[in-house]
Amino acid sequence: MAMPDPVVASLIPAAAVIGIIFAVFLWKRVSAIQLTGGRLISSQNGREYLLEEQQGGGEEEVVAKAADIQKSISEGASSFLATEYYYLGIFMVIMAVVIFSLLSIVKPEGDRTRNDEVRNGIFSTVAFVLGGATSILSGYLGMQIATYANARTAVEARKGIAPAFMCAFRSGAVMGFLLSGFGLLNLFLAITIFAKFYGDDWRGLFEAITGYGLGGSSIALFGRVGGGIYTKAADVGADLVGKVEKDIPEDDPRNPAVIADNVGDNVGDIAGMGADLFGSFAESTCAALVIAAVSSLGTEHDYSGMMFPLIVSATGIIVCLFTTFIATDLYPAKVISEIEHTLKMQLIISTLLMTPVALGVSIWALPATFEMSVPSSSPDKAFDTKTVKNWYMFVCISAGLWGGLLVGLQTEYFTSNRYKPVQDVADACRTGPATDIIFGLALGYKSCIIPTIVIGVAIYVGNTLAGMYGIACCALGMLSTLATGLAIDAYGPISDNAGGIAEMAGMGEDIRERTDALDAAGNTTAAIGKGFAIGSAALVSLALFGAYVTRARITMIHSSILDPRVFAGLLLGAMLPYWFSAMTMKSVGKAALAMVHEVRRQFNTIAGLMEGTTRPDYKKCVAISTQAAISEMIAPGALVMLTPVIVGALFGTQCLAGVLAGSLVSGVQLAVSMSNTGGAWDNAKKYIEAGATEHARDLGGKGSDCHKAAVIGDTVGDPLKDTSGPSLNILIKLMAVESLVFAPFFYNCAHGQGLIFDFFGWTQ
Amino acid sequence: MAMPDPVVASLIPAAAVIGIIFAVFLWKRVSAIQLTGGRLISSQNGREYLLEEQQGGGEEEVVAKAADIQKSISEGASSFLATEYYYLGIFMVIMAVVIFSLLSIVKPEGDRTRNDEVRNGIFSTVAFVLGGATSILSGYLGMQIATYANARTAVEARKGIAPAFMCAFRSGAVMGFLLSGFGLLNLFLAITIFAKFYGDDWRGLFEAITGYGLGGSSIALFGRVGGGIYTKAADVGADLVGKVEKDIPEDDPRNPAVIADNVGDNVGDIAGMGADLFGSFAESTCAALVIAAVSSLGTEHDYSGMMFPLIVSATGIIVCLFTTFIATDLYPAKVISEIEHTLKMQLIISTLLMTPVALGVSIWALPATFEMSVPSSSPDKAFDTKTVKNWYMFVCISAGLWGGLLVGLQTEYFTSNRYKPVQDVADACRTGPATDIIFGLALGYKSCIIPTIVIGVAIYVGNTLAGMYGIACCALGMLSTLATGLAIDAYGPISDNAGGIAEMAGMGEDIRERTDALDAAGNTTAAIGKGFAIGSAALVSLALFGAYVTRARITMIHSSILDPRVFAGLLLGAMLPYWFSAMTMKSVGKAALAMVHEVRRQFNTIAGLMEGTTRPDYKKCVAISTQAAISEMIAPGALVMLTPVIVGALFGTQCLAGVLAGSLVSGVQLAVSMSNTGGAWDNAKKYIEAGATEHARDLGGKGSDCHKAAVIGDTVGDPLKDTSGPSLNILIKLMAVESLVFAPFFYNCAHGQGLIFDFFGWTQ
Repeated sequence: MAMPDPVVASLIPAAAVIGIIFAVFLWKRVSAIQLTGGRLISSQNGREYLLEEQQGGGEEEVVAKAADIQKSISEGASSFLATEYYYLGIFMVIMAVVIFSLLSIVKPEGDRTRNDEVRNGIFSTVAFVLGGATSILSGYLGMQIATYANARTAVEARKGIAPAFMCAFRSGAVMGFLLSGFGLLNLFLAITIFAKFYGDDWRGLFEAITGYGLGGSSIALFGRVGGGIYTKAADVGADLVGKVEKDIPEDDPRNPAVIADNVGDNVGDIAGMGADLFGSFAESTCAALVIAAVSSLGTEHDYSGMMFPLIVSATGIIVCLFTTFIATDLYPAKVISEIEHTLKMQLIISTLLMTPVALGVSIWALPATFEMSVPSSSPDKAFDTKTVKNWYMFVCISAGLWGGLLVGLQTEYFTSNRYKPVQDVADACRTGPATDIIFGLALGYKSCIIPTIVIGVAIYVGNTLAGMYGIACCALGMLSTLATGLAIDAYGPISDNAGGIAEMAGMGEDIRERTDALDAAGNTTAAIGKGFAIGSAALVSLALFGAYVTRARITMIHSSILDPRVFAGLLLGAMLPYWFSAMTMKSVGKAALAMVHEVRRQFNTIAGLMEGTTRPDYKKCVAISTQAAISEMIAPGALVMLTPVIVGALFGTQCLAGVLAGSLVSGVQLAVSMSNTGGAWDNAKKYIEAGATEHARDLGGKGSDCHKAAVIGDTVGDPLKDTSGPSLNILIKLMAVESLVFAPFFYNCAHGQGLIFDFFGWTQ
Repeated sequence: MAMPDPVVASLIPAAAVIGIIFAVFLWKRVSAIQLTGGRLISSQNGREYLLEEQQGGGEEEVVAKAADIQKSISEGASSFLATEYYYLGIFMVIMAVVIFSLLSIVKPEGDRTRNDEVRNGIFSTVAFVLGGATSILSGYLGMQIATYANARTAVEARKGIAPAFMCAFRSGAVMGFLLSGFGLLNLFLAITIFAKFYGDDWRGLFEAITGYGLGGSSIALFGRVGGGIYTKAADVGADLVGKVEKDIPEDDPRNPAVIADNVGDNVGDIAGMGADLFGSFAESTCAALVIAAVSSLGTEHDYSGMMFPLIVSATGIIVCLFTTFIATDLYPAKVISEIEHTLKMQLIISTLLMTPVALGVSIWALPATFEMSVPSSSPDKAFDTKTVKNWYMFVCISAGLWGGLLVGLQTEYFTSNRYKPVQDVADACRTGPATDIIFGLALGYKSCIIPTIVIGVAIYVGNTLAGMYGIACCALGMLSTLATGLAIDAYGPISDNAGGIAEMAGMGEDIRERTDALDAAGNTTAAIGKGFAIGSAALVSLALFGAYVTRARITMIHSSILDPRVFAGLLLGAMLPYWFSAMTMKSVGKAALAMVHEVRRQFNTIAGLMEGTTRPDYKKCVAISTQAAISEMIAPGALVMLTPVIVGALFGTQCLAGVLAGSLVSGVQLAVSMSNTGGAWDNAKKYIEAGATEHARDLGGKGSDCHKAAVIGDTVGDPLKDTSGPSLNILIKLMAVESLVFAPFFYNCAHGQGLIFDFFGWTQ
């Protein structure tokens, strides 16, 4: 019962456009909050808020100050992104030349002609540029929205929790829907336009489309790493001098690094994270498409079946739209204790709603049965044909969807200070920072268990039902509620910034308490978002790996762990996440040291700074962060970009298969443990600060020895959770998609045996 | 040009006995240092020392006090080991029953009879008990020697660096030679006796012998974990209250946890480490033997060729004997700056001497060519026959030998405070503990690069030349200089204890400085020892893995990473080191908290303790450590022991293959990074304390803020480098050897498909 082609061809762009329109609509509502002109004009938004307390109208001065700070942050973020994108533009030009050259020189084999190879080179390059451009657009738009919303959230916090939450959440949703909409629309347009040139050669078409994933992911890598270094250099630097040495509160306007810190939230957690998840979306879709292209869906030119991955994403946007209404209009959070619950319910509701939709899509878009080609475990042939029923794909989508929810909820358990794990870490602060850190590390290690089992089960189910296509669909399922995931993820840094602005604009203790509460929930949702990002990255890269293996003509027997090349590759691959993390951690450390020296210098040399009578030189700190981020992102970026090319060309496709698998299985653990350890430390600190329970108050609150220990843990966690951990997702995805794109070139190097082994005659 | 059988049959036990006699000879020389009776009688040892300074004769009181403290430490260690071995005895009885039952019930297939299976069950069990007993003996002897030597080293330190170094080094060598000697002798005797019952069935004989490795390794696991928790609970607890809160020096007799801390060095770093390396030796030999048994060496009953692995170890003992003479008699360290150099030269010289010996042994013991059966990469058959030349094995041994040296030297570079990495970490203490920890973690991650590449190359070379036998021989090569490795490894904790005794006996600042210098070199050699242990563990477990795969009848096609069972296993396996580390870290943290409370309680309630007029209750702290170690070692031990059995029986042999490979590639990284991070933090602290350079003095020395930050880093590093990190070696080896022993049983569970998959009919 396949969907008619015109329905498919209109459903996908329609859903994408609806998502974009919805985002614009939400933005309008956020922009109703006025920052300029005399008195604060309350946002009406068509309904009455049930405020728990009213703070009266705003004094001109405070609002003007907030607007002023917002302007500084926005300018800092724009100027950093402009610098970053300038270098990324150069990178993209070089990379485009490399892609075109390496793919075009491939010697045609079989019934392929030179023209086929050149065409593959051209369109892979175009897709790469398009993916990169979409990623840049996503990051830029996200940053614009976030810097637009932060001051407004702070201003709204004066009216109560509800309006502030609404402002932050709506702004997050703007980003979620814009990204999902643009990502889907651009991919759809690319496929439609490429099809004009490829005609019936769907295999070639979708192989070229994988460039879109590569473009998205390589920009995401630099965005995550650069943004991560920027934000943590500023954050760590500001905390080390401000909180630890000078004993002034976080976000105090006297701290010279405070603007850089707030800019960092926007360029790292917003722009970087947006680019990361856009990359995951692009890659999972590309992986599913390229695998489907060689199945009966592709060979029989079943348009609706082929477009199944895009239809899932399209319907996901609509599901998320309804889910968002629930938080913004039906049951918004009205008191502090409801915030985390409301955000968590978003995840649960979107999963619940998406499940029947996935069933419907699987039945309507796919033929009742279709044939997948899977690597054969019989020694006689390289491939078996597996008959897949359409409802199998519903099982795969659901496995991803619910698996993602499970990972999200367990992440919440390990990182929210409402549960025992974080409270134990906070309790360990009684005996100082060392035990805080030991317990936090142990917590992170332990939090790897459930996600690994969930991903392992998803892999087994997906692969058993439909080979690598099944795994790609698990990833698609996990990402189908991307718009909601992004919304609650972006909510965090917006609230964090709002808190900073409230503090700097001198809005008073009670306002700051509200933004802190919003921010604490944001820490947990950020950790949940990272859980999703890692889980989906693992599935995505395995699916890409599967597509790579097919394209590089590696059979089961050639990918045995008993093969020394594969095993040595596995071992080297498992090491790469460590090497990469060493670089990024060290970069943050170095940049933070530079920041500390600058902040100390300003405190020591600028008279009246500590007394608040003179303004610090914010720009100098912004410049240090910018400089560090740009120069330090090159080495880790090069490691990730060059490894597949070097290994694939010199040591062969089998060794590269080992490297990809090794970096995947090892990187997942390191990424999960880093994110959760960092999140737990941060919330353990917030737990002690908030003093909401008997136990928490017993730890002494702000300024106590326990709190000082917790601040040290939090500082150590900063690069773990915001630089190294999240960048590892991209490492594993990017190496896989790059290998997929360059697979024909690697195979061209001595039939995949690797130039070095071929040179010495050690081919097997 | 094979060696005649009688030569082989006498060479191996002769070398083992020579090693043991040499150990007894060294012990005699150490015991010439008198601890009892009036004046200190100088040890003559037949030669004059060139002392840099003389401290005059010892006062009766100080020596008596040292003897008294030594007695407390020795008693504490003996009592802990007695308790530990009591529980391990129970464990061994249960495990023996399990091994016998699971192997005896295997349904005989092919030309095997029920009798064959029962015989395999009986002899595997006997070998297991023998291996376990040898491991217990090794640990116990090591502890006895170390507690015997620590006070003597302290007493000798009053005479100067040279006699103290000599005492500590000789005692370490006693342990090295006793362990290598007994390990080799027992294994040789077991093979000789078993042969009476097996006759010509060499394959059956050596399959049963693998139980020896399992016994050695499972005792080692509990020894490492239990000892590691004991020592670090005491160390962390003592440091947190003593150094951080009360500001009293390390090893101050007023600290109630000080005896427990010193006991810990002996039960953890000596007994645990000895058992660990004995396990590596036993397993690498067993892996090589079981693989050789199915080669032409085994099927053609070539005795000298078959015994090649034992001959390598036997000649290694003799080589180490000459090497030791160089340090003790030809060029002993005479001044502080020479210590580290002398120890490092031991490694280099033993490697240099062993290389030609390995060439000789390869040529004389092995036939010019022999045939190995290796998994086939051709789809037509499961196995290929590879012709191996005897000098190939020399290449493998050398690859291991020199690879080990390279790993050792790079470990020294990353953990010695004479080089930039540790100095950078020390420098990061300027900005507090957070940057110290960030830089330390980054250093550990970075230090994974070289060992991984070395192991990867060794795997490639070994496998290309002689399949899994080549890899086993790489491991044998790395461990051939075991006696020297153990000697310099045991030297560390003996010096550490000597420092403690010097402090507690009130021997004065200058004596303490000397023992500190001995100890700082010891930290580095301990890290080098861990590097060796991890490198060899990786190679050993890969060789065991190869033997397991053969015994479980897994071909290349069944071990493809494209198989969902293998890949899911890979992912789960990569997670296990994290789970295991979470348990051990948390255990140390919990036990340390209990220790902190007890130490604080004593300081608060015992009047006159801080003034030094009353003695603390040392026994209470010893009891806390003992209790914690015994109860906390059960869960991680069960995780490691049960995982292979559960996965193998329920999810099949292919999934288990994935788990083994995954835990290997991920565990190596985690273990290396943990050990080196911890070692670097420890030596960064010592660097600041010693103030030997301009830069070091600039950091402020003892008691400065930098130093306080470094102490926190050191405390975090304690469980990383002495509990979790080194236990991971055993995790990867033990799971592999256990899988090998139980392989027939797993194959018996639904032909290796796993009972769960079989139950649901999901067999492939």
